[in-house]
Amino acid sequence: MQLFWDRGYAASSMEELVARTGLHRAALYGAHGSKQRLYEAALRRYLERVAGPRAAPLAPLDASLPALEAWLLRAGESAAGPEGRRGCLLAVAAAEAPRPATVGRIVEAWLGELRSRVARALRNAQLRGELLGAVEVGPLADALCGSHLGLWALARSPAPRPAVASCAAGLRAWLGSLRSGSPGA
Amino acid sequence: MQLFWDRGYAASSMEELVARTGLHRAALYGAHGSKQRLYEAALRRYLERVAGPRAAPLAPLDASLPALEAWLLRAGESAAGPEGRRGCLLAVAAAEAPRPATVGRIVEAWLGELRSRVARALRNAQLRGELLGAVEVGPLADALCGSHLGLWALARSPAPRPAVASCAAGLRAWLGSLRSGSPGA
Repeated sequence: MQLFWDRGYAASSMEELVARTGLHRAALYGAHGSKQRLYEAALRRYLERVAGPRAAPLAPLDASLPALEAWLLRAGESAAGPEGRRGCLLAVAAAEAPRPATVGRIVEAWLGELRSRVARALRNAQLRGELLGAVEVGPLADALCGSHLGLWALARSPAPRPAVASCAAGLRAWLGSLRSGSPGA
Repeated sequence: MQLFWDRGYAASSMEELVARTGLHRAALYGAHGSKQRLYEAALRRYLERVAGPRAAPLAPLDASLPALEAWLLRAGESAAGPEGRRGCLLAVAAAEAPRPATVGRIVEAWLGELRSRVARALRNAQLRGELLGAVEVGPLADALCGSHLGLWALARSPAPRPAVASCAAGLRAWLGSLRSGSPGA
């Protein structure tokens, strides 16, 4: 998982995977069948250990605006922190092409799940009157998910680190400006 | 340029570059020295022919909110259009790691230039009273540039195409909500 995270799929060689896992090539192929299967397993582990916990604030069915704010805050702290330069393995996988269909399905399922959670939290926020009534939930959910992907893309890019923290702050301010009764409104 | 755009750097082999350019390997190395030099030339050509024209609305020194809206509209149409699945070559280069220092500098210069143009247009918009006074230009400029990168990441990802168009619409609505006197404000 660590090697794919740093290098992406195409640039991770079986030689390095053998060196990093400490397994012999035959044992690696035996356990996972191919570099592609190993990559799929790495993506699933990343979902379970990294991306899942990061999206945890959005998991409760009654999550609303405070959960969205907590999610963005956590993402911003991770992206601008010392590990942030590695970016997000799922965002790296989303950028690699051509991708095997099985990898595409894992990435698509993650993007879809995140989008559903964000849209649900926005609908809850609107029902509770936390959000300005004029906000259209669908495009806002897609824009927030796209921007979250962009925050991770910026974190992995050669952009200076203060720009990553500033981007995260700007995204939080954006969400804050949609709060009903916000100073900007 | 086309092959790097579709595949990224690591997955583009010299064999395919030879096949796509119609040049012999010796001629390719003679003209560009290495795959890395060829990649740098491809990035520069992409900047000149694709990314530059897309950011043209932001070039005038007096560009303000209408220019930002035109830039986002153009990016959204390209990202959600038939060529959008390829994403943006500079965004692909920003995601690849480890990257040679020369490639990093080209990507960083582009991110920096785009950020400067967006920040200048936001400052102009604020001076002209087009933008809500409470908006903080710095984080907003970084958030818009990060979100623009995210739009292109989403375009290249396996996400369904309507999500890309919806993300672009949501980003335009976000900018619209910051216009002074907007219905949401």
